[in-house]
Amino acid sequence: MRIIGIDCGSERTGYGLVDSDGLRHRMIVAGVIKTSPRWPFERRLCEIAGGLRELIREHRPELAAVEEVFAAVNAKSALKLAHVRGVALLVAAEAGLGLAEYSPLEVKMSVVGYGRAEKTQVQMMVRSLLGLAETVASLDASDALAVAICHATHEATNRRLGLQGLSR
Amino acid sequence: MRIIGIDCGSERTGYGLVDSDGLRHRMIVAGVIKTSPRWPFERRLCEIAGGLRELIREHRPELAAVEEVFAAVNAKSALKLAHVRGVALLVAAEAGLGLAEYSPLEVKMSVVGYGRAEKTQVQMMVRSLLGLAETVASLDASDALAVAICHATHEATNRRLGLQGLSR
Repeated sequence: MRIIGIDCGSERTGYGLVDSDGLRHRMIVAGVIKTSPRWPFERRLCEIAGGLRELIREHRPELAAVEEVFAAVNAKSALKLAHVRGVALLVAAEAGLGLAEYSPLEVKMSVVGYGRAEKTQVQMMVRSLLGLAETVASLDASDALAVAICHATHEATNRRLGLQGLSR
Repeated sequence: MRIIGIDCGSERTGYGLVDSDGLRHRMIVAGVIKTSPRWPFERRLCEIAGGLRELIREHRPELAAVEEVFAAVNAKSALKLAHVRGVALLVAAEAGLGLAEYSPLEVKMSVVGYGRAEKTQVQMMVRSLLGLAETVASLDASDALAVAICHATHEATNRRLGLQGLSR
């Protein structure tokens, strides 16, 4: 299965495409859609939507995985993030992708085996699980790959158990 | 000028289209895009995006006006609302509409002349300003018309003062 993981952010939206059977994972491409804080917010949303649509058109994933958002410390940035996330969910759904959402805890549990793992630990495990020669430089891209790997593992388990779609 | 006002909500997104010279306002159409809470959230976003695109295609507004969102009492619903709002801003920007955002306070000040006005007072003023025989039954549609009228007034003032675009 081919999965696009998306790590939403209004200035930097990470993406990571992975082919996986649930055990072995292969990276197709990963990177960051960058927008300028000087642009009007709606232009940034257009840029992110356009970037994601292009990736989906080019690499044809079947599934999309996105991290959940919480109104944590900074309510204002959580709200901004939620705007971007709405756009990402729309683009994925309009492209017909199956969609899954995971909490940061679930992603870390799945990738590192420890829910309070540091970002750099996630980065190292992502490198190891994908058999990459180097760590993915951008933390946003690495986080996007992590949520894609997390979904690959869950989806493979669900498929084996005949529970397809339960992870939605 | 023709303005679409949008009152975002994940279950009910109000819309109101108004023709205005800044002083006289005429309603073109107003209503609500309803989605079911039983639908997956991304399906609701698709429905709202589709509904707004159809309205823009049919009525060709030049401008869109949307209320700002605050992490007020209920952080969880504010986050949900922000997802919908991201979708609305994207749809408006992709259609090339000039976009303006107003706080609930600004809308009430502009329409009722009092920032702490009740929803029903807004509803009555909307009816009066649009010269309607009856109040617009739905509060969501009425709120959407209110933000459209608010923008019409601001935009007309800006245009008279040669400050076009300052309200963005």
